[in-house]
Amino acid sequence: MATMYPRASSTGATPSEEMNGTGNLMDFLDEPFPDVGTYEDFHTIDWLREKSRDTDRHRKITTKSKESYWELIKSLLDAWSGWVVMLLIGMLTGTLAGVIDLAVDWMTDLKEGVCLSALYYSREQCCWTSNETTFDDRDKCPQWQKWAELMTGHSEGAGAYVLNYFLYVLWALLFSFLAVSLVRVFAPYACGSGIPEIKTILSGFIIRGYLGKWTLLIKTVTLVLAVSSGLSLGKEGPLVHVACCCGNLFCSLFSKYSKNEGKRREVLSAAAAAGVSVAFGAPIGGVLFSLEEVSYYFPLKTLWRSFFAALVAAFTLRAINPFGNSRLVLFYVEYHTPWRRKTTLLGKYPVLEVIVITGITAVLAFPNPYTRRSTSELISELFNDCGALESSQLCDYVNNPNMSRPVDDIPDRPAGPGVYSALWQLALALIFKIVITIFTFGMKIPSGLFIPSMAVGAIAGRIVGIAVEQMAYHHHDWIIFKNWCRPGADCVTPGLYAMVGAAACLGGVTRMTVSLVVIMFELTGGLEYIVPLMAAAVTSKWVADAFGKEGIYESHIQLNGYPYLDVRDEFTHRTLATDVMRPRRSEPPLAVLTQDSTTVEDVETLIKDTDYNGFPVVVSRESERLIGFVQRRELTVAIKTARQKQDGVVSSSVVYFTEDNPQVAEACDPQPLKLRRILNLSPFTVTDHTPMETVVDIFRKLGLRQCLVTRSGRLLGIITKKDVLRHMAQMMNQDPESIMFN
Amino acid sequence: MATMYPRASSTGATPSEEMNGTGNLMDFLDEPFPDVGTYEDFHTIDWLREKSRDTDRHRKITTKSKESYWELIKSLLDAWSGWVVMLLIGMLTGTLAGVIDLAVDWMTDLKEGVCLSALYYSREQCCWTSNETTFDDRDKCPQWQKWAELMTGHSEGAGAYVLNYFLYVLWALLFSFLAVSLVRVFAPYACGSGIPEIKTILSGFIIRGYLGKWTLLIKTVTLVLAVSSGLSLGKEGPLVHVACCCGNLFCSLFSKYSKNEGKRREVLSAAAAAGVSVAFGAPIGGVLFSLEEVSYYFPLKTLWRSFFAALVAAFTLRAINPFGNSRLVLFYVEYHTPWRRKTTLLGKYPVLEVIVITGITAVLAFPNPYTRRSTSELISELFNDCGALESSQLCDYVNNPNMSRPVDDIPDRPAGPGVYSALWQLALALIFKIVITIFTFGMKIPSGLFIPSMAVGAIAGRIVGIAVEQMAYHHHDWIIFKNWCRPGADCVTPGLYAMVGAAACLGGVTRMTVSLVVIMFELTGGLEYIVPLMAAAVTSKWVADAFGKEGIYESHIQLNGYPYLDVRDEFTHRTLATDVMRPRRSEPPLAVLTQDSTTVEDVETLIKDTDYNGFPVVVSRESERLIGFVQRRELTVAIKTARQKQDGVVSSSVVYFTEDNPQVAEACDPQPLKLRRILNLSPFTVTDHTPMETVVDIFRKLGLRQCLVTRSGRLLGIITKKDVLRHMAQMMNQDPESIMFN
Repeated sequence: MATMYPRASSTGATPSEEMNGTGNLMDFLDEPFPDVGTYEDFHTIDWLREKSRDTDRHRKITTKSKESYWELIKSLLDAWSGWVVMLLIGMLTGTLAGVIDLAVDWMTDLKEGVCLSALYYSREQCCWTSNETTFDDRDKCPQWQKWAELMTGHSEGAGAYVLNYFLYVLWALLFSFLAVSLVRVFAPYACGSGIPEIKTILSGFIIRGYLGKWTLLIKTVTLVLAVSSGLSLGKEGPLVHVACCCGNLFCSLFSKYSKNEGKRREVLSAAAAAGVSVAFGAPIGGVLFSLEEVSYYFPLKTLWRSFFAALVAAFTLRAINPFGNSRLVLFYVEYHTPWRRKTTLLGKYPVLEVIVITGITAVLAFPNPYTRRSTSELISELFNDCGALESSQLCDYVNNPNMSRPVDDIPDRPAGPGVYSALWQLALALIFKIVITIFTFGMKIPSGLFIPSMAVGAIAGRIVGIAVEQMAYHHHDWIIFKNWCRPGADCVTPGLYAMVGAAACLGGVTRMTVSLVVIMFELTGGLEYIVPLMAAAVTSKWVADAFGKEGIYESHIQLNGYPYLDVRDEFTHRTLATDVMRPRRSEPPLAVLTQDSTTVEDVETLIKDTDYNGFPVVVSRESERLIGFVQRRELTVAIKTARQKQDGVVSSSVVYFTEDNPQVAEACDPQPLKLRRILNLSPFTVTDHTPMETVVDIFRKLGLRQCLVTRSGRLLGIITKKDVLRHMAQMMNQDPESIMFN
Repeated sequence: MATMYPRASSTGATPSEEMNGTGNLMDFLDEPFPDVGTYEDFHTIDWLREKSRDTDRHRKITTKSKESYWELIKSLLDAWSGWVVMLLIGMLTGTLAGVIDLAVDWMTDLKEGVCLSALYYSREQCCWTSNETTFDDRDKCPQWQKWAELMTGHSEGAGAYVLNYFLYVLWALLFSFLAVSLVRVFAPYACGSGIPEIKTILSGFIIRGYLGKWTLLIKTVTLVLAVSSGLSLGKEGPLVHVACCCGNLFCSLFSKYSKNEGKRREVLSAAAAAGVSVAFGAPIGGVLFSLEEVSYYFPLKTLWRSFFAALVAAFTLRAINPFGNSRLVLFYVEYHTPWRRKTTLLGKYPVLEVIVITGITAVLAFPNPYTRRSTSELISELFNDCGALESSQLCDYVNNPNMSRPVDDIPDRPAGPGVYSALWQLALALIFKIVITIFTFGMKIPSGLFIPSMAVGAIAGRIVGIAVEQMAYHHHDWIIFKNWCRPGADCVTPGLYAMVGAAACLGGVTRMTVSLVVIMFELTGGLEYIVPLMAAAVTSKWVADAFGKEGIYESHIQLNGYPYLDVRDEFTHRTLATDVMRPRRSEPPLAVLTQDSTTVEDVETLIKDTDYNGFPVVVSRESERLIGFVQRRELTVAIKTARQKQDGVVSSSVVYFTEDNPQVAEACDPQPLKLRRILNLSPFTVTDHTPMETVVDIFRKLGLRQCLVTRSGRLLGIITKKDVLRHMAQMMNQDPESIMFN
C-alpha cells in the first residue's frame, strides 16, 4: 500500500504514516469510533464524505482480494451485489404490484356484488371462468350477483337500486375508515404519495422510518383499501414509495449499502424507477421518471441499474399477469400528492375528514356510470376508439346502412342519442373529478395524483374530440376540415384527443416532459402518436410554467419546509459568500477550536453551549489560519471514550490536533488528548468574494453540508446548506419577477 | 441594484462599490478588455466562469428590462432565444437529413443503372412512378435500365454482368475519390464520425473550426459521396456532427450563445439529440443518446430543449419524407469512428488508402447480393419476417399445401434450397463486413459505425434465428421447444433474432443501454420486443465490459489524447492533492505574483518565460497567503493596453492587486498600475490533504480548469485539469486490475 504514495509529503512524514497514525502513541483506536458516519434524524448527509468512505471500503476489499481466493470471491460478490439488490428489488416490487392490483380489482367489485362460484374472484375473473358466458352475451354473467339480487332476489327496480347504492357507500366508508385508522395507528409516514419526501430523501435528507418495513407493510395494505374505496386517488405515487421501501429493505442485507447513505440513495433511485415501471407497465418511462423527476444524484451506473431493476419488475408483474393481455388495462395509475392542506378545519380530524370525503365521493359517484367505475377503467374507455361492435354509450353513433365497409374502418358518423347523454354525464364527471380530487389530496391515506389528473385530462379531451368530430361531420366544407377529411373517411379520432388531454393535464401538474411521453406510449403502445403527445407535453409545460415554475412535488416540498436544493432553480442574484456566511456582524464570533491550546473542558463547554454540527480548527485565535474541521458527533464520542478508557485524560488535558507528538513538559501535567484522527484535513473552503451563484452550484453539485469562508487564508465564517436555502428563499421573495427568465 | 446587497461587506466598502470599481481613479476601463473571456484553440474552458458570466449578462438584461418597454421586449426575446435556436436547428437538421437521404438513394442506384424517365429519380422512385409497374410485376420496371442494358442493349449474359461489375466499381471509386479529395483539400475536420471530438468539445475543450460552416458544407457533400460509394460505413455518426455544426451556426446569431462557451455547449447537446433524431427517426432515442453518450453538462433545461429540437427535426424530415411511409426504411444509419489506425502504412497516404479500400469493397461486394445493396436495405430485409408472398431468397420455405391457414399466419416450415444458399451468402457477408469495417473506420472520409455494427449483428442474429427455427421444426419433441412450440404454429421468429443481434452488437461497440433500446424500438416500431431488446442491451454491456470498460468513442478520445475527463471512470486510489500538485519537489517554486511588490517588467518577464495559463497572487513571498488568481491572457491584454493608453505606466511601475488605493509617495515615482479588476478573488482551493478522489470529483462536476492547493492558508501549489488526467492515467497503468471492480 505504501507504494501508492510515490513521494513523501512536504512535511517529512509519509502520507501513509500520517494517515494510519502509526508511531503516535496516543492513537489508541484502530477502528473508527462507533456510530461515526451515521447522521441524526432530519439532518443532511455530506455526499463527498459518503463517497470517500465508500472508496475507502472498496480499496480495503481490493487490497484484501489479493491475499486469498476466499477474499477474491468476497470481492467479486461485493462488486456484483449492486445487481443482486436490483434483481431482488425488481422481483419484490413486481410481486407487490401484482398482489395490489389483484386485491384492488376484487375489493372494487366487492362494493357492487360478489362472485358466487368463488368469493375471491373479481367480476371479470368470475365472468371469464363462467362457461355460460359467450361472446354475444358477454354482459350477462349469472355467477356474478349484485348485492340487491343476492339479498332480495330482485335485480331491477327502485328498491334494488337504493339497496345497491346504500351498500356501495357502506363498503366505501368501511374501506376508507380501515385505511385511515391503520395509517394513524401504525405508520403515519404511509400517507400521501410519498414522492415529495422521496425526492427530499434522495437529495440527501434523513427521515428515519420513512422507508421502513412497517411503512412498507401498512402502505401496501392501506393503498389497496384506499383505492378500492373509490376515492379520487391513484396508486402510482404510493407504488413508488412502496418500491423505495423495498429498496431500503434490501439495502440492509449488504453493508455496502446499509452503512453508506450515498450508496443507499443510488439504490433508492433505481427502486423509484422500478416503482414507476410496475405502476404504468412502463420500464423505460420509469427510468426516465426517476432521472427527470425524482433523483438528485444520478450517475450513469445508476441509469443502467435502474434500467435492470425496472425490467425485472415489469417482467415479474407480467408473470403474475393481473390484467390478462390487454395493454390498456395496464392503465392502473396515480401519482400524486397532498396539496395545500395545512390550514383546513377538517385537517385536524384526519379520520373524520377521510370518512366525510369518502361519503361525499361515494354518494355523488354512484349515480353517474363514469364515476362509479374505477378511474383506470374510465381512462381506458375514454382512450379507446369506437369499433362497430362497441356497446358503450360513447359509441352510440348512427350507422349508415348504405356503407359496406370493413368492420374496423369506421368513418365519421353522426352521433346518436347515447353519445349526447354520455357527453352530459362526462361533463358532470369532469366537474366532480376536479373538485373532489382537490379535496382528496393530502388526506391521511396513501394517495396518488397521476390517475385523477389523467382522468380529468382524458374527460376534457374526449369531450373536445367528440365536438370536433361532429363539427367535421356536419361541416365537411369548412376550410379547416376540407384538407384532410375526405367524405366518409375517418378524420377525427376522439380517443386520441382523450390521450393527448390526459398527457397534457398530467404534464401541467407534474412538469414531466420526456418521461411523460415515454410513459404514455409505453402505456398505450401508441408509438405513432408520439408527435401529438410530445407537442402536448411541451405546450402544457410552457403554459404551466407561465403560472409558476414549480411542479406539484416541489410545491409540496416547500410547503413542508424540507431542505431541498432544487437543481432547477437558478440562482442569479449578485450576492457574495460574505453576505450569507455566519457569524453576521452583530453576532458573537465563530465558535472555533485551536490546534493546541483548547482543553477538554473548553471543548465540552462548547459542545454544551452550542448546537452546531461541527467546529473549524485554527492554528491560533490570533492568526485564524484554518487547518481543518471536526464533526460535533465525532468529537463528543472521542472525548467520552477517552475519558473512560484513556488514563490521565482529565478536564484540564489539552486537546491536540497537530501532527507532531505534543511535548509533555512535566510529569505532573495532565496527559494530552490527541485527536488528529477525527480532524477532517480537507474541509471545503471558498473565499469571501465568491459569488453566491457559485456557492449554490458547489453545494448542489458536490452535495456539501457546510463550507468554510476564508480570506487570504484566514477563517472568516461558515455557510451551511440551510443558510444557502434561507438566502435563496429571501432573494426569491425580494425579486419574484426574476424567475420568469430562468 | 444596491438593494440587492443587504449588508456591507466586512471590508468597509459595499460589494457593489468593490465590484464596479467606482471611486478608483486608476480604473479606466468601463468595458471588460477586448478578447477577455475567449479561449485559445485546444484549451479547456472554465465552466464556473462561463456560468458566472452568463449570470452577469442575464442580470444586466433583467435590470434593464425595468427601464423601458423596448428593453422588456428585448429581455423577453432573450429569454425565448433558446427555443428559437432549437426550432432553427431542428428545421435545418431535418432538411439536411432529408436531402442527404434523397441524394444517397439516387447515387447508390446510379452505380447500377439509371432511370430513363427522369435522370434524377432513384430506382424506387422510377419504378413507383412508372405506370407499367403493377403489384404482381413489381420486380419488373422497364423505365429503370442497368448500365449494360443501356449501353449494349443486352441485360443478360456474362458480358453484361462484367460490364455492370466494372461500372459498379468505377462509380464507387469515383465517389470515394471525390469524397476524400474534398475532405483533404477543404475541410480536414470533416472526416470520421465526429462523435469522439464532439464529446470532447462538449466536455469543455476548444477545437476551432471543428463545427464551422465549411466543415458543415463539406461534411454534408462528402457524406453523400462516401455512403453512395458503398463503403462499409454509415451516415448516423456524421449526421450528429452535421447537426452540431448547424447548432454552432445558429449560436452565432445570438450573442447569448456565441459569446459564452458554456451556453454554446448547451445548444450543441440539444443539436446532437436532433442529429440522432433524424439519423434514426427516433426523437426520444436522440435525447437519450445525447444524455447517455455524448453530453457532459446536461441540466434539465437542456433535456427539455433537446426534446423540442429532436421533435422539430423529426417532423421536418417526415415532411420531406424521403422514405415514403415504411417505418423500417427509416433504417438509414451509421455511427462510428476511426479505430486504432495510427500506425498503418497506408494511413500516410489517405487518398490512396480510400481508393484501395473502396476498390476492394466494391470488387468483393458486387457478387454477393447481400453486400451489393446498401447496408440499410440489408438490415431492413434481415429484420423482416417472411410473409407468404415474400419473394426473397431468405423466405424460400417449403410450403405445406395441406395447410389452409390465413396468409399472414405462417407456421414453422422446413427451409427450401433458397434459404440454404442464402445462409452461405450471409455467412460470407458476415466475414466480409467484419473485416472490411475494421479497415474502413478511420479513413479520411465521413464515416459512421452504427450501420456496419448493426449489419454484423443482424446477419449473425438471422443465421442463428434460422438455425433455431429449423431445429424447432425438426425436433419438436426436444424439451426446450416442447413448452412453447405447438406443432404447426409459429414459435421462432428469425427476424426478431436479427433485431436482437443488431442491438447486442451495437451495444457492445458503443456501450449504450437505455438510449439503444429506445432507438431500436423507435426504429422498428416494435414496442412488444422491449424485453428481449433490453436483455440484449444489458447482456452485451456486461460481456463487453468484461473486456474493458471503454466504448469505442472513449477509446478514440484516448487514442487522440484529448483531455477528456470521463464521468464514468471512477478514481479509487488513495493519493492526495499533495502528490499531484506542481511544483514537484525537484522543480523550481511556483510562479506567483505578489499583491503590491511586482513591477510591470517582472510581470512581463514572467509571461515571457513561462507558458502557464495564469498566476496565483499572494500577499507577499514570505507569508504566501493566497488572495486571488489572474489569467495570463487578461494580464497580457491589461498591461499592453495600460502601456499604450495610460500615462506614466513604465517598466518600473508597480502592479497593485490590493483594494486600497496605493500611496504614491513622491511625484518622481512611476505611476502604479492597478489591476484588481482582472483578479479573480474567488479562485478554487483545496488543502494538500484532500484525497485525489475528491479533487477528481470537483474537477468533473464543476468543470474547473485549475485548482490551487493550500495548507493552513499558505499557497503550496497548483493542479490543472491536465495534471489530473495524467495522474489518473498513471494510476490506471499501475493497477489495471482495479477497474474491474468499478
